[in-house]
Amino acid sequence: MIEVEVKARAYKDSKEKIEALGGTPLGVENHRDLYFNSPSRDFKKSDEALRIRIKEDGARLTYKGPKLDQQTKSRRELTVKIDDPAQMREILSFLGFVLSAEVRKRRTKYSYQGMVIALDEVEGLGTFLEVEAQGEEDWENEKERVLSVLKKLELKDTIRRSYLELLEEKRG
Amino acid sequence: MIEVEVKARAYKDSKEKIEALGGTPLGVENHRDLYFNSPSRDFKKSDEALRIRIKEDGARLTYKGPKLDQQTKSRRELTVKIDDPAQMREILSFLGFVLSAEVRKRRTKYSYQGMVIALDEVEGLGTFLEVEAQGEEDWENEKERVLSVLKKLELKDTIRRSYLELLEEKRG
Repeated sequence: MIEVEVKARAYKDSKEKIEALGGTPLGVENHRDLYFNSPSRDFKKSDEALRIRIKEDGARLTYKGPKLDQQTKSRRELTVKIDDPAQMREILSFLGFVLSAEVRKRRTKYSYQGMVIALDEVEGLGTFLEVEAQGEEDWENEKERVLSVLKKLELKDTIRRSYLELLEEKRG
Repeated sequence: MIEVEVKARAYKDSKEKIEALGGTPLGVENHRDLYFNSPSRDFKKSDEALRIRIKEDGARLTYKGPKLDQQTKSRRELTVKIDDPAQMREILSFLGFVLSAEVRKRRTKYSYQGMVIALDEVEGLGTFLEVEAQGEEDWENEKERVLSVLKKLELKDTIRRSYLELLEEKRG
């Protein structure tokens, strides 16, 4: 599955703007994201990611492939639900994967025309807005849709770096 | 968790012997086991295993460490339940893990004094009996218990090789 995704820094009025646009509130989630690096290639260089996400409704293991274009942060995303994140973390460790970072955020989610708009308050980074859609071969069409939502919300400067990369950048 | 385990070839009367001993039937499971090899070290040499098991009550990802002694096939075992084995297989593939073999078997399970006795009809290999217990620091005590069950069932020659190894051996 291709996760078609754009991100930008949110403004103070972004929440109001999403609601004015007609976004349907989907609730608030607290994410604890653990990122791992591979023993066989440096994910920072290969632009991949392996993540355990722990949130209220359970935990998931997600692999993200390299970004697919220069404009958005769209990439292949594969996810399985797991019943025991501590055990998964231990399995990854025995397989040689090393914890590289932890990202905590509070995500307020909206549904809008089959897409998800997420307002993310990221610990240590501030507030961001992401617009996400899912596609397969048709993902280039979805790209136009997510970019048009960003435009409607009057957010111009898209950020292609992940929260993980932004945190690493900040730490120098 | 340490999986304390012994295995032997079963005889025609092994089922009757388990029942005569007082084993409580736990039901029958059909296992489809997919084994993967690592891109960073050869699991055949390091005596490790990574497996997706698909059975009636769901799928699991399991890592097995090297065997811990010369007598049994006891080893560290870590397991998570996963909701989507096809997606997990794809994640492993993107991480560089390669499918090395598939093992199918029909397992008839019994509970006996806190241990599990399993009668396994393995496709292409025949019927085996396994006695399993779980331990942590105390696993050496459990070892005596599983070995004594094997003795009570009049099975002498323990096999330390996994079904995967036995299948590979058979294929030459």
